Amino acid sequence: MLGTCLENVRKTVPLVHNITNYVTVNDVANALLACGGSPIMSDEPEDVTDITSICGGLNINTGTLNRRSIEAMFIAGARAKELGHVVLLDPVGAGASALRTDTALALMEKVRPDVIRGNISEIKTLALGSGTTKGVDADAADAVTEANLDAMVEFTRRFAEKTGAVIAITGAIDLVSDAKTTYIIRNGRAEMSKITGTGCQLSGVATAYAVANPQSKTVAVAAAVCLMGLAGEIGFAHLQPGEGNSSYRNRIIDAIYNMDAAALEKGARYEVR
Amino acid sequence: MLGTCLENVRKTVPLVHNITNYVTVNDVANALLACGGSPIMSDEPEDVTDITSICGGLNINTGTLNRRSIEAMFIAGARAKELGHVVLLDPVGAGASALRTDTALALMEKVRPDVIRGNISEIKTLALGSGTTKGVDADAADAVTEANLDAMVEFTRRFAEKTGAVIAITGAIDLVSDAKTTYIIRNGRAEMSKITGTGCQLSGVATAYAVANPQSKTVAVAAAVCLMGLAGEIGFAHLQPGEGNSSYRNRIIDAIYNMDAAALEKGARYEVR
Amino acid sequence: MLGTCLENVRKTVPLVHNITNYVTVNDVANALLACGGSPIMSDEPEDVTDITSICGGLNINTGTLNRRSIEAMFIAGARAKELGHVVLLDPVGAGASALRTDTALALMEKVRPDVIRGNISEIKTLALGSGTTKGVDADAADAVTEANLDAMVEFTRRFAEKTGAVIAITGAIDLVSDAKTTYIIRNGRAEMSKITGTGCQLSGVATAYAVANPQSKTVAVAAAVCLMGLAGEIGFAHLQPGEGNSSYRNRIIDAIYNMDAAALEKGARYEVR
Repeated sequence: MLGTCLENVRKTVPLVHNITNYVTVNDVANALLACGGSPIMSDEPEDVTDITSICGGLNINTGTLNRRSIEAMFIAGARAKELGHVVLLDPVGAGASALRTDTALALMEKVRPDVIRGNISEIKTLALGSGTTKGVDADAADAVTEANLDAMVEFTRRFAEKTGAVIAITGAIDLVSDAKTTYIIRNGRAEMSKITGTGCQLSGVATAYAVANPQSKTVAVAAAVCLMGLAGEIGFAHLQPGEGNSSYRNRIIDAIYNMDAAALEKGARYEVR
Repeated sequence: MLGTCLENVRKTVPLVHNITNYVTVNDVANALLACGGSPIMSDEPEDVTDITSICGGLNINTGTLNRRSIEAMFIAGARAKELGHVVLLDPVGAGASALRTDTALALMEKVRPDVIRGNISEIKTLALGSGTTKGVDADAADAVTEANLDAMVEFTRRFAEKTGAVIAITGAIDLVSDAKTTYIIRNGRAEMSKITGTGCQLSGVATAYAVANPQSKTVAVAAAVCLMGLAGEIGFAHLQPGEGNSSYRNRIIDAIYNMDAAALEKGARYEVR
Repeated sequence: MLGTCLENVRKTVPLVHNITNYVTVNDVANALLACGGSPIMSDEPEDVTDITSICGGLNINTGTLNRRSIEAMFIAGARAKELGHVVLLDPVGAGASALRTDTALALMEKVRPDVIRGNISEIKTLALGSGTTKGVDADAADAVTEANLDAMVEFTRRFAEKTGAVIAITGAIDLVSDAKTTYIIRNGRAEMSKITGTGCQLSGVATAYAVANPQSKTVAVAAAVCLMGLAGEIGFAHLQPGEGNSSYRNRIIDAIYNMDAAALEKGARYEVR
């Protein structure tokens, strides 16, 4: 099933409009190309209506947001929804500043994204109006663990129910949930947190997956999360002596590029509840 | 002749002012350094007059343009022309949005770039007021092929004549033309399209080549196009097991860095009409 | 002593707010992660007060500055100083444009950075109101050499005295000085200048080092300078056949990632005056 999601991306080459931060944008573009999608970036209010119109999905990321790009997010979001495109929200830094939190909440209310992907601190901020944060990283105190897994599954499912979106919370254990079904995913490696932007890359890739698999967005997002984690495992195995986080970044994108359906099916580690 | 162009770049270290998108800007800077040039980036209207004045060439790229950077493009363009600098226009996304198309057309009219480099869909948009597009990539329907080569050579030559610019159309087959001479170039690999920004990198490098070879801009741009394609071939040959598009990106820039005149002369595959 | 500085960074994981250029921002983020810090980027005036408040240090870099980001620099700078955070200024392109020079001088006057790190041409511009420049690179005519070393040490010490900041001038020979003590550092390789952003990376890393070592900022900055140069040596030693400046970039960040206290102590080459 995950393998079919992957093949649908490679077959249909979904064009994804990204309004994203300038820190990790190059990696997002290369990750989208690696998975079989096609990226385009635009954050000028006068440009985004045209650009999003020719795409299949819209990936909105609140990292390094500014007044201009925020305006673009709402314009593009409205247009994308009007056209029935998939919209994904990645609320980078929600909880770290009022502007980021408020922008993410307003996007949820006005654009109604189909998918929301963030770390646990960001999602807690959006769901509960609270949640600690350590900059753009999740606070350890918030982490999804084996000990609190049942409660976190329920939390995620309810937030999906409330928002009508597929919710993806990524960390040591990843959760992907709609109102009915939750995927608990255990792919990935801790070292991925020493690279900037693996979350941003996943958001781009997950948008492409959801666009290419319109009948099964939740499975598609779960497939993208497994893909990213598995690529993290494969990339790590390819590290050569003396290599560190910068080479690891390249090797993860390389692993996405080389992934096929059989490898994804075999390597994905998840349970469904 | 191509080798001499390369050596002139390494000898004179041309300083190139880039107003370019934030997706591929880092790769543009490293590609410029790799080829022997020196990059500087600035897109603030109050900053660009000073910056472009100390440079030898200006590379204007319309990807992720915004109101502020558009204003900067016109100010820097006017100043660069006033000083007799080489100006290259890379109309990223022309045809994909009205803002990008209109900006590129206005830059052509008011700044009169010395070189215009784009994919075939972008160039058709500028030349014919039409042309399909697939985001920032060329549409397959537009492609330059062996079957339509004569017509495309003529199309390119005429557009060069009309604009007074050297026109470079890059794809599976590359065309570089002024009003009299056309270079048909067959270097490169299809896998280069799976990396974001090889076109943007080429535009930066081609600007440096044109600056360093003022008596023969057309040859210089053809040399840059051969260099980029050849670097794509060499970089591909250096790929190790498990590597994909992200490592390929690095290996192409590495190949530009290690290229010398003899290797370029030997590896360039082109015919002149 | 340098080793202790390194360990303090890895132990305390200092969160650094970066207002930096979009050319090298991804490398700055990965270099900060590699050294044990945690990066966050924000340049929107409405966002920076919140963001800088949760950090320990602020790294201000004037590359690709614009009216909006300049406003953000002053707001964040004021807030950071109010909170007693470390503020580092990297005056990229001072001397290359009036806007960059004036912004850097105004930041020095109003924000009073704790550390100023630049190349010799940039620092001369700020110290003497003159200084040649070659874009964002130092002019060879300005270089710190064995021949002018005594005079340059005295110049650096006096500028530190005048500004109250730790001054770091990096090039073939690096100088780090406060009013009393100067470190003369001979780590690094000439090939590092063929990569965009090693200076920007160092500024991010030096901010983290100063945050994590509040009692000894000068030593901390010297340690960061040694670390960067040593990583340049180690990364170079790891280059494989066919690799060039793009792979070198990755291997330097990898070397920062893998550095430990013993390796830094052993590899650092410096004298104290």
